[in-house]
Amino acid sequence: MASKNKGLRPKARIPRGFRDRLGAEIAAEREMLARISAVYEAWGFDPLDTPAFEYTDALGKFLPDVDRPNEGVFSLQDDDEQWMSLRYDLTAPLARFVAENYDRLPKPFRRYQVGPVWRNEKPGPGRFRQFTQCDADTVGAPAPYADAEICLLFAEVIEAAGIARGEYRIKISNRKIIDGLFEKIGLSGAGGESVRATVMRSMDKFDKFGPEGVALLLGPGRKDESGDFTEGAKLDDARIDAVLRFLSATQSGEAGALDALDALLGATPSGKAGFEELAQILALVPDERKANGAIRIDSSVVRGLDYYTGPVFEAEFAEGLTDAKGRPVQMGSIGGGGRYDDLVKRFKGVEVPAVGVSIGVSRLLAALELKNSASQAPAGPIVVLALEKDQMAAYQRMAAELRAAGLRAEVYLGGANFAKQLKYADRRRAPVAIIQGPDERAKGEVTIKDLVLGAELSKQIEDNVEWRESQPAQISAARSNLVAAVKETLARRRS
Amino acid sequence: MASKNKGLRPKARIPRGFRDRLGAEIAAEREMLARISAVYEAWGFDPLDTPAFEYTDALGKFLPDVDRPNEGVFSLQDDDEQWMSLRYDLTAPLARFVAENYDRLPKPFRRYQVGPVWRNEKPGPGRFRQFTQCDADTVGAPAPYADAEICLLFAEVIEAAGIARGEYRIKISNRKIIDGLFEKIGLSGAGGESVRATVMRSMDKFDKFGPEGVALLLGPGRKDESGDFTEGAKLDDARIDAVLRFLSATQSGEAGALDALDALLGATPSGKAGFEELAQILALVPDERKANGAIRIDSSVVRGLDYYTGPVFEAEFAEGLTDAKGRPVQMGSIGGGGRYDDLVKRFKGVEVPAVGVSIGVSRLLAALELKNSASQAPAGPIVVLALEKDQMAAYQRMAAELRAAGLRAEVYLGGANFAKQLKYADRRRAPVAIIQGPDERAKGEVTIKDLVLGAELSKQIEDNVEWRESQPAQISAARSNLVAAVKETLARRRS
Repeated sequence: MASKNKGLRPKARIPRGFRDRLGAEIAAEREMLARISAVYEAWGFDPLDTPAFEYTDALGKFLPDVDRPNEGVFSLQDDDEQWMSLRYDLTAPLARFVAENYDRLPKPFRRYQVGPVWRNEKPGPGRFRQFTQCDADTVGAPAPYADAEICLLFAEVIEAAGIARGEYRIKISNRKIIDGLFEKIGLSGAGGESVRATVMRSMDKFDKFGPEGVALLLGPGRKDESGDFTEGAKLDDARIDAVLRFLSATQSGEAGALDALDALLGATPSGKAGFEELAQILALVPDERKANGAIRIDSSVVRGLDYYTGPVFEAEFAEGLTDAKGRPVQMGSIGGGGRYDDLVKRFKGVEVPAVGVSIGVSRLLAALELKNSASQAPAGPIVVLALEKDQMAAYQRMAAELRAAGLRAEVYLGGANFAKQLKYADRRRAPVAIIQGPDERAKGEVTIKDLVLGAELSKQIEDNVEWRESQPAQISAARSNLVAAVKETLARRRS
Repeated sequence: MASKNKGLRPKARIPRGFRDRLGAEIAAEREMLARISAVYEAWGFDPLDTPAFEYTDALGKFLPDVDRPNEGVFSLQDDDEQWMSLRYDLTAPLARFVAENYDRLPKPFRRYQVGPVWRNEKPGPGRFRQFTQCDADTVGAPAPYADAEICLLFAEVIEAAGIARGEYRIKISNRKIIDGLFEKIGLSGAGGESVRATVMRSMDKFDKFGPEGVALLLGPGRKDESGDFTEGAKLDDARIDAVLRFLSATQSGEAGALDALDALLGATPSGKAGFEELAQILALVPDERKANGAIRIDSSVVRGLDYYTGPVFEAEFAEGLTDAKGRPVQMGSIGGGGRYDDLVKRFKGVEVPAVGVSIGVSRLLAALELKNSASQAPAGPIVVLALEKDQMAAYQRMAAELRAAGLRAEVYLGGANFAKQLKYADRRRAPVAIIQGPDERAKGEVTIKDLVLGAELSKQIEDNVEWRESQPAQISAARSNLVAAVKETLARRRS
């Protein structure tokens, strides 16, 4: 019979590639987002919220996964046959919003947005199909001022999140110098879009796979650990070599980075324009921000999304970042962005300059957690035990009094016995439990049990049954004195 | 040519039934949700976040729109052929989460969740296909204690949001007394699920359509203003009359409400159980919360969702709530909830009692805005005008100094002339503009223009060209004294 019923029951399972999040992580993210949002607002950015859905044609296809042009996004057809997709970032919806409301917006338009985005990708360890982004963008402001401002804002946001100066660096490049590379190696002609896209996608893997891996992706193709094969760009050896030299040009450090690139690319028209923009941006960055390469040129920055037209940048942790135990932390990119002058143009036909930055919220949170060791779970509520069914209203009054005094408090709800209720209070990480059975009630008293002290004492005196039974971690108080006695207990612990 | 290009361009349009939200509304919602969350946390509820998607079979079909059983939700098929749906509420995902993680959760499990939900419904004025819910639920705690607690919590949350005691009321009923009604009028038999669902859906419209409209829905059917026809339940007149008497039984007010219902339903088994539960809940509600019917029995409460099994409740604004201009406010329900003991059972096979409340965030915000008159848009940033291209770094330093002093500040980015930059500052609602052209710079000074005072003065002295030209709303200050001078200007206005 049981198996028959079981067959009818759905299995409780979260969809693959998604995750649930609980108390401590949500609290940490909320606090971090509040600090980041405060910086965005201080810089004159206003919040915007767009819906999860956009029309598929409005969203455009800018995801790096061009092998699956109809995938990468979650799409469905509406009642009226129009295709809608869940947003894969916060930039494409901004372009739609600006184009739709262009005339009534102040220009330049600075906005920030926080929210989930969805990618219909193959799930993997630590790779989720829904994650939070936190973006700031300036639309309608020309290069290089807006680009420099976004870079400085980016640095300030990272520091507001809790990463100190010196622990991160912002690497800047420019899609135009990549165009210059294509011009130099004869890949810039019409009809070469597909090869260029494959090459850029390969270049974007330089951090992850190193020169050897990228050489395979640029050439015959590469098989990953799981056996999946990625088709290569089929470049000849000379071109592969040129691309790898380009990617490595600035890896030795800041000094002479521009010269090295310049020497590599010669005087290609696109390369020249790209270098000029990079120099202008760096000139607007105060020296103290550039010290120790905290903001630097790095030719290996490509950025995955297809819509960038000029400067691109990416933040990563500096070498030497260690966790609370002194071990090195490898975290990859913690966010990035760039200039995308054509995204609003798609709708309006006229170029509307735009530049923005996107923070990888969960990556940054994970790094902070490593850095600061395990995050502190927030304090649990005080638990008022429910020992007599007909006294529930009295227990609720106790909890209400504690809450009115600014404390978290709940009444145990359910039929468990005393020991199980105490165990529940422990699992809830309650600082104290409030106990009033018939004896205490007859005397007009409550017992306040200090669960943290109690746990410590029981560790120290594990074998001393007698002392444990004397219950040193609990006190009696008059019912009328409940709140003051609880506050004293909590204050004693902190002192 | 233009038309040819135009044909290739997507139209910038938000999907129908969705909306964008801007600065002031987001700020107001964020503040309200923070206050509500603080209450939930004080009562011992911890935050939970589940993904937007659930497997369709796990989500279940509990939406009221049974006429379109495969609609009501947004669904798509995953790569592995499994159907996924966007959550239509926060309760069904909670049931999935609890069933999936049952053994590792403390019981009772109290959680709150804030986030968007999606309904694939016909969009209408003020009716959106994405909206925010803000729920608190207790799973694994028996009636009536958890029900009473949720009702009291509900009242406290409404007050924390800014609706004073006396301005709202919480109406409680019980699905079991509706079952009693069905028993009384001979609709309780097997095979009657479809009729009962139609009847309950009709009853749920009592607030909106009144007795006449509900009578049509219970009988032959009803045509709405747009001409759409809703099929009726085809009850005979005696049954329609009984249902309407049931819905109206408690409308006259609190006194004798239970007796009136009791008389109507006689001694049906379900009705009896429902009355007992209602009486138990009311006994746990402190008298001051019941005063003036602030928490009261109301037999017209049904709640649209199909999964409720016992007590249901709903909050609405009390009669006499008026807006800032003294006009009556009609807002409908501002949230509700109930007991749903079978929702976890769907997965686990054993009954897991649960009760919760859901706040209609946008409804509550709209009501607060009406009540408090137009919401105050947050202050705009100080705008530093950019009058000389080669001084951008100097302007950025001014903005940075102002931000470091805790003020919002931005540099104008773009090529506009002086007048247009000032107009931009006005549109941004900037309190002051900072002006440094070549003259000021030569003297080591800045001009601080008070835009609010300036606007007031220009209203008063519209025709006095001379006085306007004397620019009484602006002062000069030494560049080195920028921050102090701005703070003085702002302080002078407030005093």
